[in-house]
Amino acid sequence: MHQDALIDGMAADEGWLHERAFQFGDGLFETIAIIDGLPCLWDAHLVRLFDGCRRLRLPTPDPQLLYDECLRLAGGRARAVLKIFWTAGHSERGYRRPPVIRPRRMLRISQWHESAVPAFWSLRQCAHRLGENPALAGIKHLNRLDQVLARAEWDDDAIQEGLVLGQDGRVLCGTMSNLFLQSGDRLSTPCVKRAGIAGVVRELARQLASDSGQVLEEVDVPIDAVHAADALYLSNSLIGVVRVGRFADRIFDRDVVEHPLMTETRSQCHRPVEWGRPC
Amino acid sequence: MHQDALIDGMAADEGWLHERAFQFGDGLFETIAIIDGLPCLWDAHLVRLFDGCRRLRLPTPDPQLLYDECLRLAGGRARAVLKIFWTAGHSERGYRRPPVIRPRRMLRISQWHESAVPAFWSLRQCAHRLGENPALAGIKHLNRLDQVLARAEWDDDAIQEGLVLGQDGRVLCGTMSNLFLQSGDRLSTPCVKRAGIAGVVRELARQLASDSGQVLEEVDVPIDAVHAADALYLSNSLIGVVRVGRFADRIFDRDVVEHPLMTETRSQCHRPVEWGRPC
Repeated sequence: MHQDALIDGMAADEGWLHERAFQFGDGLFETIAIIDGLPCLWDAHLVRLFDGCRRLRLPTPDPQLLYDECLRLAGGRARAVLKIFWTAGHSERGYRRPPVIRPRRMLRISQWHESAVPAFWSLRQCAHRLGENPALAGIKHLNRLDQVLARAEWDDDAIQEGLVLGQDGRVLCGTMSNLFLQSGDRLSTPCVKRAGIAGVVRELARQLASDSGQVLEEVDVPIDAVHAADALYLSNSLIGVVRVGRFADRIFDRDVVEHPLMTETRSQCHRPVEWGRPC
Repeated sequence: MHQDALIDGMAADEGWLHERAFQFGDGLFETIAIIDGLPCLWDAHLVRLFDGCRRLRLPTPDPQLLYDECLRLAGGRARAVLKIFWTAGHSERGYRRPPVIRPRRMLRISQWHESAVPAFWSLRQCAHRLGENPALAGIKHLNRLDQVLARAEWDDDAIQEGLVLGQDGRVLCGTMSNLFLQSGDRLSTPCVKRAGIAGVVRELARQLASDSGQVLEEVDVPIDAVHAADALYLSNSLIGVVRVGRFADRIFDRDVVEHPLMTETRSQCHRPVEWGRPC
């Protein structure tokens, strides 16, 4: 009988090598803040996951099942991080998907490492530029080499995040965060229609702006605008909203009054909510 | 004690969920034709894999070890397909790689399905366009959603391949193959510096051209050039070199005399060679 797979020289169960998420990155993920045993921004994560399914032509998960499994793993922990994978399942070699896609859902919970995270972050500019493709922009798919390569550029723990540009030099986002720019009373964030991720905290800010009649502009951002801004903010589901204290040689004035939309977004993004109950 | 991972609702070993190839597509692969127990174009596969390691900043594998494992899995089979994965190994959540990358090598052998593969292929044009990024172009990394989505556009087994364009409408390649265009006595292939894969058979054709003083142009290819060509060819490590019989509404004249470089490439690409011995 033939042996079919070797992993680091050892005969191996080849099951995982058939997983399309492994073979091609054919799937989606979400990284969710768990507080007091409950997920934060659950609806926003679900909306993005479902949008990702539509864009990648994948069947959608059962949201109640996902939620129940989320609570099961959370197990009442005060703070934790939940990562959900939703993959295109198994197939043989070849890009072609099987006639019936049987997605697999995988959830993993891990510690939320928060030690020594400063209130004002140091930001650098990455040399690696993101690939651009409207068909894949915005969603949180598993093809993340761009982010990996951008993040691999620095090793200095004093720098928390790297700013990433697109092919044409426009500013897009951080390696793991969205960017906001405050200039006078204007607040803006780079458009993510050609590259980058539509973050859930960014989405919350958009929603809060819309609800309150405030303006959050989604625009093309040249690098000069980043240097010239009065204040910069970074956001993701775990860091919430943080301010930038330094970008390259520019030191930002920490006394600049924060835009109220950023303050409100920060205050709301880590509220754990039981799903289905009004917040 | 907390439970840390669920896969389809079952408590799971979370080891695989730490694999960076799974989390981010952080790795490379090669798909190699095995004939008479030996790999074809082994040197070309190695060269591309090593180039991929350099571009992705990964340590390189031991080529002799890979070759030995390849032969071990091949087990003297007359025809088989070997897929090699070379991954960035395990890490926690987050794009940042660990201080010491411990790549994992995974090899899987499978049947070579050749039944009913016609000599002249039907080619369609895909609507999905490839993302463009010179930093990732050419190498065979594990971020392959572009190819998956392009291949998901059709289900008709009478169509063997889809032609894929770039963001600006230039022709780049097939979903799983490189393209060659014959017009009069000119032979050309799309440039893969911004997107697409530098296929090993394409590389063989370049090498043979260089050795024989023939010209294989690497150019920007507008879609009109595909419609207007006298003959089209597709190549990859398994199909070798095949001719296109039909592209969209265009039926190609099968009596057009094949370019000698294509004939020579086809005849050489499936010669199994013991590594280290002169061919």
